[in-house]
Formats: sequence, C-alpha cells, structure tokens
Amino acid sequence: MFEAVIQEASQFRKIIDSFKDLVDAVNFDCTTKNIQVQAMDGAHVALVFLNMEAGFFDKYRCDRSVSLGVNVGTIAKVMKCASSDDQMKLQAEDDGNQLMFTFQSKSNERNSKFEINLLEIDSPEALQIPETSYSAEITFSSSEFSKLIRDMANFGDTVTIQAKKSSIQFSVGGSTGKGSIVIQETPEVETTKITIKEAIQLTFSLKYLSQFSKGSSLGETVTLKMSEDSPLLVEFPFGDDLGSLKFFLAPKIESDE
Amino acid sequence: MFEAVIQEASQFRKIIDSFKDLVDAVNFDCTTKNIQVQAMDGAHVALVFLNMEAGFFDKYRCDRSVSLGVNVGTIAKVMKCASSDDQMKLQAEDDGNQLMFTFQSKSNERNSKFEINLLEIDSPEALQIPETSYSAEITFSSSEFSKLIRDMANFGDTVTIQAKKSSIQFSVGGSTGKGSIVIQETPEVETTKITIKEAIQLTFSLKYLSQFSKGSSLGETVTLKMSEDSPLLVEFPFGDDLGSLKFFLAPKIESDE
Amino acid sequence: MFEAVIQEASQFRKIIDSFKDLVDAVNFDCTTKNIQVQAMDGAHVALVFLNMEAGFFDKYRCDRSVSLGVNVGTIAKVMKCASSDDQMKLQAEDDGNQLMFTFQSKSNERNSKFEINLLEIDSPEALQIPETSYSAEITFSSSEFSKLIRDMANFGDTVTIQAKKSSIQFSVGGSTGKGSIVIQETPEVETTKITIKEAIQLTFSLKYLSQFSKGSSLGETVTLKMSEDSPLLVEFPFGDDLGSLKFFLAPKIESDE
Repeated sequence: MFEAVIQEASQFRKIIDSFKDLVDAVNFDCTTKNIQVQAMDGAHVALVFLNMEAGFFDKYRCDRSVSLGVNVGTIAKVMKCASSDDQMKLQAEDDGNQLMFTFQSKSNERNSKFEINLLEIDSPEALQIPETSYSAEITFSSSEFSKLIRDMANFGDTVTIQAKKSSIQFSVGGSTGKGSIVIQETPEVETTKITIKEAIQLTFSLKYLSQFSKGSSLGETVTLKMSEDSPLLVEFPFGDDLGSLKFFLAPKIESDE
Repeated sequence: MFEAVIQEASQFRKIIDSFKDLVDAVNFDCTTKNIQVQAMDGAHVALVFLNMEAGFFDKYRCDRSVSLGVNVGTIAKVMKCASSDDQMKLQAEDDGNQLMFTFQSKSNERNSKFEINLLEIDSPEALQIPETSYSAEITFSSSEFSKLIRDMANFGDTVTIQAKKSSIQFSVGGSTGKGSIVIQETPEVETTKITIKEAIQLTFSLKYLSQFSKGSSLGETVTLKMSEDSPLLVEFPFGDDLGSLKFFLAPKIESDE
Repeated sequence: MFEAVIQEASQFRKIIDSFKDLVDAVNFDCTTKNIQVQAMDGAHVALVFLNMEAGFFDKYRCDRSVSLGVNVGTIAKVMKCASSDDQMKLQAEDDGNQLMFTFQSKSNERNSKFEINLLEIDSPEALQIPETSYSAEITFSSSEFSKLIRDMANFGDTVTIQAKKSSIQFSVGGSTGKGSIVIQETPEVETTKITIKEAIQLTFSLKYLSQFSKGSSLGETVTLKMSEDSPLLVEFPFGDDLGSLKFFLAPKIESDE
C-alpha cells in the first residue's frame, strides 16, 4: 500500500509542470523514505532528478518499495483538475495497476477521483548523479533567473556562463548584437549568494535552460553549480530536508557550436 | 416602438456572449411583458431559450409584439464597443428594418450609436419546451460547474451524470484513465442544493456542455435538471422574476457512443 | 561621445513599442538639445516623428551631432530585457559603430549590457512637417481613443472623423451595420478639450490608426488635429517641454474608397 497526502494540490502540480515537457514516461520510485524520479530527456542531453522526502507530504505511507510507471503528461492533465487549495491524496495498491488521485475541496463540497493506468517502464541503468565538488555556485532569485534565460533566448541559441571574482556573467551573441547580464552579491538582496573556488566559463543550450526555468514557480530561489567537465546543475529546493527538483545539463563543446 | 434600457451594458454583453457560438441568426421576440429568444444549434442537438422579463430592464416599452431577426455574431460585435458600465439603449421603430444600440458613458463624454440591419428569419415551429417534473436537480456554484466541465473535457468527449442518494457524480473515461467528480451538499456551501426524487444516470456530449458553461459569467449559480427520456436543462438565472438563460441538451443514447 | 540616462527603462520601451511595427530601420538624430526620429512607413502613407528633449532624460550628453542608424525591431528586443524599473543608459562612442544599452536593477544586483550594430541609413530628404494652423483639435483620454479605434476596426476599414459645433464624431460603416461614436466636452471629464474653428470631415484608414493607438500607453491623453488637405496629426505628449511622439496620416480621397 502506497499513500501520500499534500494539503495544497498546487504544490504537486507545479512540480509536475516543471518537467512535463522534458520527459515522457517515468518511474516514480517510492520507498519508505522518499519518492524519486530520474529520467533523461528524449535527446539524452538533460537529466531530471526529482526527490520528494516523506516529510514533503502531510501524510506518507509506503509499506514496501515500489516503482510506479506513469506518463508525466497524463499526470499533468489530472493535476489541472485540482483547484489550487484542494487537498490531494495519491494512492496505489500493492501489485495494483492503477495510480489514484483524490482531490477534496476545502469545504468538502467537491470530491474528485482520477485513476491512471500504470505503465511497465524499463528502469534505466541507475544513473550516476555526479557528486562533484563544484568550482562555482550561485543562489539567486528564481524569477530573475527565469527572466534572464527568456531575455538571452531572444538573442541566441546558447549562453556562456562565466564565473570570475565574485560575480556570474551570462552572455549571448547573435547576428543582431550581443548582450551580457552580470549578477553579483549586494547588501540589498540577501538571497543572492555566490561562491567561486576557481574561475570557469562554460556554454549551454538556451533551449534546455528555458525548459528548466519553469521550475522557478517552485520557490523563491534557484541554485546553479558548475565545474569543468561536469554537467551544469540547476536546483530548485522545496525547503529544509524536503527534497528538490534538479536538472543536469551537459555543456556545449567548442566544436558543437 | 420598441425601447429597452439597461444601466450596465456588460449585463447584456455577457448574455449574448454566452450563446453566440451556438446559434447564428435568431428572432428576438419582444412583447409587452418580455423578450424571448428560442433557437436550436446548427446540428439540432441543443436548444437555447433566453427569457428577459420587462423587469430585467431599467426601462422597457414595447407597444406591440414584434420579432426582431438579428445575427447574434453581429450583436456580439456591437456589444464589444460598449464599456462595461455604459448605459445601453435598444430601439426599433415599428415596421423599421434596423435595430439601434446607443451606449452612453457614465460621464456623458462619449455617446455611441450602432445600427444593425434586421433579417427576415423563418420562425421555427413553436418549440416545445418540456415542462417536465424532473427526477434530479442540482444548484451549485457556476464557476465550479465551468471548471468541472473544462476538466472533464480534458479526458474524454462525453460525461456521465449520475444522481443517487444525496450527491451528483460526473464521470469521464478515456484511453489515459478515468475520473469522477462528486458534488454534495455541505453546511459550508449554502448555495449548493441537491434534490433527487429518483436515481438517474445519463450521458451527455462535453462539447455542448463546454459551450453552455460560458453562461457561468451570468451569476453565482447554475441549476441542472435531469429526467429519464428528457433533455438535460442547464439554467443560469438572472435574479428573482427577471428571467434566465436556459440550455437544453438531448442525452446520448447507448448506441451513439 | 553620446550618453543618455533614464531612471525607468519602461518609459523608453513604451516609446519604441509604439512605433516599432510601423517602421524598420531609422536614424536616431542626436544633438546637444534633443534626440529626434523621422521616418515613413513602408507604404509611405504614415509619418512617425519622435522628439525627446534633453530634459526627457535624467542625464544627457551629446558632444557633437550624430545620426545613429538602428533597426527598431532590434531595439525593441533589447528593451524587453530590461525590468520596468531598471535604470537605463544609452551610449555611443564618437565614430563608433555600436549603440550600447546598460540596464541596472534598483538593488544593483543585476547589471546588463547589450550592444547593437549601427547601420548606415540614407537620411531621407528632410521631411516637411507641416506647421499648419488646424481647423479642429481634440484632446481626450488616450485609453478612450485606443478603445474607440479598436471598436471601429471591428466594423470597417475606414473611419470618418467629423468636427462640428462642439463635438467630434467618429463613424464607420460596413456590410453588417454602421456605427458612430461622439466625443464632447463635459464638466466631469476635465481632460477632454475640443476646439473647432471650422467644420470639417475627413476619412482615414483604420489600419494605420490602430497602429498609432499603441501610443496610448505613453500618457493619459492624446491630441488629434485636422485640417482640409493636411495630414491628420495624432500626438502623444511626454510632459511639458519633454517632447512627444507624433504620427501623421494622409486622409483617404473619395476615389480611394
């Protein structure tokens, strides 16, 4: 028996909406401790890693580990049927072949149930999430991040992220001109934190970063971590020890461009 | 001479917008007591019945009964030209061939006049609006209704409405899964009223219900009434004795599906 | 050296957005006193005349007169990258071939730079802006103007503007009907001012007026000025002695219609 309850369905909806366009069918791996999803996008360039700790839910029960194979697009459709402040319950029977969603309106007037068929999905080889010690990290406003990526994408297909001294520079160039946006720590904005161990400069696809930036609805901040020869990590935390949504993206190599 | 005045043009605009996509050219049948419109959609599956009592208007005068044939899409265009709080006057001369709209801004600064040509429309045989005593009735929040229909339409083409005991269940099934939404009376939501004389279950086209749900802008509540072998009635009331907008929809028969 | 600073980037963005769809590449003619842009639309029917006085900027320096040839669409793209309350700086070196935009967020956390390549644009023969004494002038709410043009465009391709006695009438006719909107002075609306020296009636293309009406975001009011045998002037002022955005449009001649 698997059961998980969230007081506000919108929390779960925002998570699903943040990666539904990147991946198709995935396994929700449920254990006594957490629910995790690992999946690569169709082109095998980006990796999604979702981790929701048991504490993320208002009630959580998972008698034995189970992999629930689901189509993310279908879950997104179901989640659109919840009002933002509905209570939500996820349920699956042991050895059942359905995942059940129950939405309850605050006033108890409306009670909705949706069942989606579980899919048999080949578990990918356990993906190696690199446990790198990163050369550069920046935490800043997720809405600034989202706007920055949208702006850059107006001018080109790739963005170069450069960490040096105490600032992070995003730059883009195209036929019509070039632009750069520099983020630095400042006393007025306490959320912005930049840590640079060694200067580094890498180039990434804006198409993927635009996808990742949908995670900006999940919270106030985003964290970017970079190292030479490692994928960029873009992380949207859910709160202390509650889990996070992580995206990994391989840098562009010179000859790619 | 026909003349009718409404203090807020938006009231009339919302009514027109609620059925403009269902019907094309219709007769506004004006008498000393009220204005009525009866029309079937092009596929002859749904019936629109609009009734605006003289009291619905701030001023109403109709010297002798007259049928004003108009294109609903054209009226909708004219109504877009009114600001929401403009005063609106409808006028037609006896034996004239124009319907005149006058909009006056609150400050008197702007005064707009639009004239549309009247059409000769064959009056359909007086449609028989069934005066059924219904098996099941539900009155509830029109915005909940609107969202419910939109949600169901994500999953399938038809919805089954089932009245039993003291609740109404809407259910939908499709290739990706199935869902159901149950509405019941609850002390917290005083507007919700359910009356079930006998259990009943009928299936309807979501395409038409989606059209009807545009009436949700007309007021706080909607009333649904169902009986075996009768069309579903979906009614948006305008207020005590002021009239209402009604839609009728034939149930799907098993072999239809 | 040319340098100009505005405290709120959105002011400049709104100006650019108001005419970016009418013209393509234009010269920003910068002198010690002001920045001016004069350009005709592709069909040579409408004329844009932008004048920003030095006082429009919070800081302004132009050592020697210079014509900066730019693509207006590219500037519009760059301006989308500014947050509304960013401080904005425009810069160009003498004999340089770039125009540089710097946006600084209020908190200093974000600093963006965009460079666009300057273009060599043939200066049109100095356009003769007619210094007519107009027969009729109306100043009124720019949002009323914008809505009025949008409404008229629903019904036809041309609008006839008629000034007589103390009111201005806009009328339109089409196959579905005809309409007219009359604006007059009224004690409740102090911004509305109408001055008519002689009665006049002219017809204009609604396609162009729709374009011009984008200027409504620039301020509370718009001024229209008309004379027989002269282009209509539609002016959006920026404030006392700060400049304005003007559009000129030739009337339709009878045989055009």
